[in-house]
Amino acid sequence: LLASALPRLDRLQWVQANWAGVEPLLEPSLRRDYVLTNARGVFGRLMSEYVFGYLLAHERRIIDRYLSQRARRWDRTPPGTLWGKQIGLLGVGSIGAQLARTAKAFGMRVKGYTRWSETSSDVDAYFHGDDRVAFAEGLDYLVNVMPATKATRHLVDEVLLRALPEGAVFVSPGRGRVVDEQALACALRKGRLAAAILDVFNQEPLPSDHEFWSMPNVLITSHTAALNVPADLAALFAENYLRLRRGEPLLHQVDFELGY
Amino acid sequence: LLASALPRLDRLQWVQANWAGVEPLLEPSLRRDYVLTNARGVFGRLMSEYVFGYLLAHERRIIDRYLSQRARRWDRTPPGTLWGKQIGLLGVGSIGAQLARTAKAFGMRVKGYTRWSETSSDVDAYFHGDDRVAFAEGLDYLVNVMPATKATRHLVDEVLLRALPEGAVFVSPGRGRVVDEQALACALRKGRLAAAILDVFNQEPLPSDHEFWSMPNVLITSHTAALNVPADLAALFAENYLRLRRGEPLLHQVDFELGY
Repeated sequence: LLASALPRLDRLQWVQANWAGVEPLLEPSLRRDYVLTNARGVFGRLMSEYVFGYLLAHERRIIDRYLSQRARRWDRTPPGTLWGKQIGLLGVGSIGAQLARTAKAFGMRVKGYTRWSETSSDVDAYFHGDDRVAFAEGLDYLVNVMPATKATRHLVDEVLLRALPEGAVFVSPGRGRVVDEQALACALRKGRLAAAILDVFNQEPLPSDHEFWSMPNVLITSHTAALNVPADLAALFAENYLRLRRGEPLLHQVDFELGY
Repeated sequence: LLASALPRLDRLQWVQANWAGVEPLLEPSLRRDYVLTNARGVFGRLMSEYVFGYLLAHERRIIDRYLSQRARRWDRTPPGTLWGKQIGLLGVGSIGAQLARTAKAFGMRVKGYTRWSETSSDVDAYFHGDDRVAFAEGLDYLVNVMPATKATRHLVDEVLLRALPEGAVFVSPGRGRVVDEQALACALRKGRLAAAILDVFNQEPLPSDHEFWSMPNVLITSHTAALNVPADLAALFAENYLRLRRGEPLLHQVDFELGY
């Protein structure tokens, strides 16, 4: 909506995006003579509830136990635990930092893969650039919260997926384009991954004939991981508006070149 | 098993129970001339994964979304959140304190109801004795982790359940006898509770013709909330054994009169 209106906004100074991802405004043909801020500060806690809700559902076998209940079966299969497990965060911005903090509350070890920032003290080990394989080794859970940029396209590919231990769980609430879906489907078909929890896809809505829908080790959450909350956005908008009036730097400015 | 063996143990000094609940050893007819220690220190983190796993599954609609997936439906129904919600802990011992700590990591307010201890700084407000109704008011979630004693029998009764707001969620991983199941079933039938997550019951296994099995707002977890972990128990046993040898007080001694 906004991308098409940009040329007509004669006195544009500032755009506050509702979301963390702002790809439509980054097309090289579009103007860049304004300050673009995104809403990356408001999604961390929702993402945290999503990721740990689904990791706990996996370990506690919540869906299997629900199916047992429908059969009136007293199902004493032991649950697993997050305690002592290792989680890998692809991307450690404001969302990744919140995920790392919550992981620590559940007694987990945390590896982080980032372009360069090493700002979260809840990350036990950082990885960069060509360290993808070392990052993936030993992970129980891999969570992709990378922004979609040229540099991150298909970062989750066959090489990365093969470096994960057998039985790892992949959680994908970030951006569909970061994932090579062919390679992911292959790893799932072979059962190398214990489960994948998929929120975002290359094509959305996910076409109804896609094989992901019926894979027994896939849960699909239809891009609901972090819907924005109007109250949070209003507070962010107000804060940035006051900063603009006072001539101060705005929060969460997007670098048009980096793409986030 | 142990209750029946107690009379034959001529030189009994100490019993380390595998569980937090030790009701069979508290029968007034049984001897009490030994030190009884329970395993209450080892269940907090498992209980925490259970309680927050199910609260997140409720808010994130994990089971509904799974059913949507089976119908290949792109289900964009917004999730709820734990953030800013109020949780009430019936019982704030070692398990309740861990639950309070995790609740704070998810941005929740915490009320605690206890006999007397007020040891957790993560509890925002404490209630005791006749304050049950004031405790229940305004709760989004009620979690029962009270031990089963004479004083706590049917503590979760019609009075307490009616004091909860419409649409509250009840989680019961503690002890079945603390809950008046007739009153609970009535509140569920009327839809006053949005959901109940039930791990323990007056009779276990839950009889296959019990109405709880088929209630749409009930999830049954078949007494799996906190199965004990051998490594944790071994560490506790070893610590208490060394303390016994050195003549030091043992950890987690049970008071036969209080029952915990």
